[in-house]
Amino acid sequence: MTQNIYDNEAFFAGYSRLPRSIEGLEGMPEWPALRALLPAMAQLRVVDLGCGFGWFCRWAAAEGAARILGLDVSERMLARARVETAPGAVTYRRADLEQLDLPAASFDLAYSALALHYIEDLEGLLAAVHRALVPGGRLVFSVEHPIYTAPRRPGWVESAGGGPGDGKVWPVDAYLDEGPRRTDWLAKGVIKQHRTIATYLNLLIRLGFALTHLEEWGPTAAQIALHPHFAVERERPPFLLVAAVR
Amino acid sequence: MTQNIYDNEAFFAGYSRLPRSIEGLEGMPEWPALRALLPAMAQLRVVDLGCGFGWFCRWAAAEGAARILGLDVSERMLARARVETAPGAVTYRRADLEQLDLPAASFDLAYSALALHYIEDLEGLLAAVHRALVPGGRLVFSVEHPIYTAPRRPGWVESAGGGPGDGKVWPVDAYLDEGPRRTDWLAKGVIKQHRTIATYLNLLIRLGFALTHLEEWGPTAAQIALHPHFAVERERPPFLLVAAVR
Repeated sequence: MTQNIYDNEAFFAGYSRLPRSIEGLEGMPEWPALRALLPAMAQLRVVDLGCGFGWFCRWAAAEGAARILGLDVSERMLARARVETAPGAVTYRRADLEQLDLPAASFDLAYSALALHYIEDLEGLLAAVHRALVPGGRLVFSVEHPIYTAPRRPGWVESAGGGPGDGKVWPVDAYLDEGPRRTDWLAKGVIKQHRTIATYLNLLIRLGFALTHLEEWGPTAAQIALHPHFAVERERPPFLLVAAVR
Repeated sequence: MTQNIYDNEAFFAGYSRLPRSIEGLEGMPEWPALRALLPAMAQLRVVDLGCGFGWFCRWAAAEGAARILGLDVSERMLARARVETAPGAVTYRRADLEQLDLPAASFDLAYSALALHYIEDLEGLLAAVHRALVPGGRLVFSVEHPIYTAPRRPGWVESAGGGPGDGKVWPVDAYLDEGPRRTDWLAKGVIKQHRTIATYLNLLIRLGFALTHLEEWGPTAAQIALHPHFAVERERPPFLLVAAVR
């Protein structure tokens, strides 16, 4: 079973207060870049892996997707998603993404936002996604960027020099040592899986996907003008966005 | 014209003393990984972009390649390459890779080792490579890894904590700010071009290449056993290896 940190009381309370939980897609600064990787949604059959509160599922329904299946391991998140979603194209289902079981060739788009870096058996999950997509079907996902997940001691440090141009640096180590990383984000002992960019991409290629776009996301100048504290995220990208076609 | 640092006296002297200049491919720890990305060489028409002293060209000839064109901007390097290469399949030619001009559909393999991060107009070069390859032709190259080239002040720093597991960290900043980086490697003011992984890959995809493999290279356990000072390179990969097909 996937670590179900979202049903941890402290984590859920903290997560629920994040801008992306209150404002939905508009509270995700990487959403415009992720949306740009998506096909036109009209008539698509869509699965959302790690749907959370259902913001993307509702957006897809509003954009005219034919059928949207939202999967998540957290009962609490699904409960809120169901309350906030009008009857129609969206179905929510509790699912352990480590044991994903979907009918073959039944989806045009698989989407996942910031969920896959919690998955231990990523190859098993992506193989199931490949089977579930029709030929020509799309996979679009975001994960925490490997530069972000690598360090043994993540966190900005002040550059020692003190000269002009000095500022915060991100202390990368252990980049090539893949595996679990324990962090205290919102709750103690959240386990994420660090993988290199090469591992993500070679896995997709080996399974028969063709890579169509990679984005190492950082805030735009317009976003930094609105939210000056975003600026530091350009020093090292927090998110990796991937688009591929079956 | 490409910055021709290799014809700088101090740089050339320093470069000539590197293990990879004395021992050739055997002095390149990333060579086994790069070789693993290459097709069988027998009968291939090969171009080497930045051939240096011609080690790869001679290897390709020994492996049975039909015709090998070695291109480099440095007259000094080509002079030594010509002296050390027996008459046969290899031709060396001085060329500015910023102005690459090759006949269409005339090569089965384009190879480049640690040269493309000096190129300003990488799109122009890769477009020329795409035209020069036959359909199904291969592009295999290595560059300095973007994590390696990004920092404003590259160089290992000691982790501040002092606790168990502490050691050297690589201070990443400016990762998303692409463009020139001035370093003092072998000579003062060597200019390299920092690009993100996404920029390299999206450029290839846009030009019509399909990515077949990505490697963020670090030394193997066997290499570290032989050369213990290599170990630190696993903290952040020094090289990025890319294989693609036209």
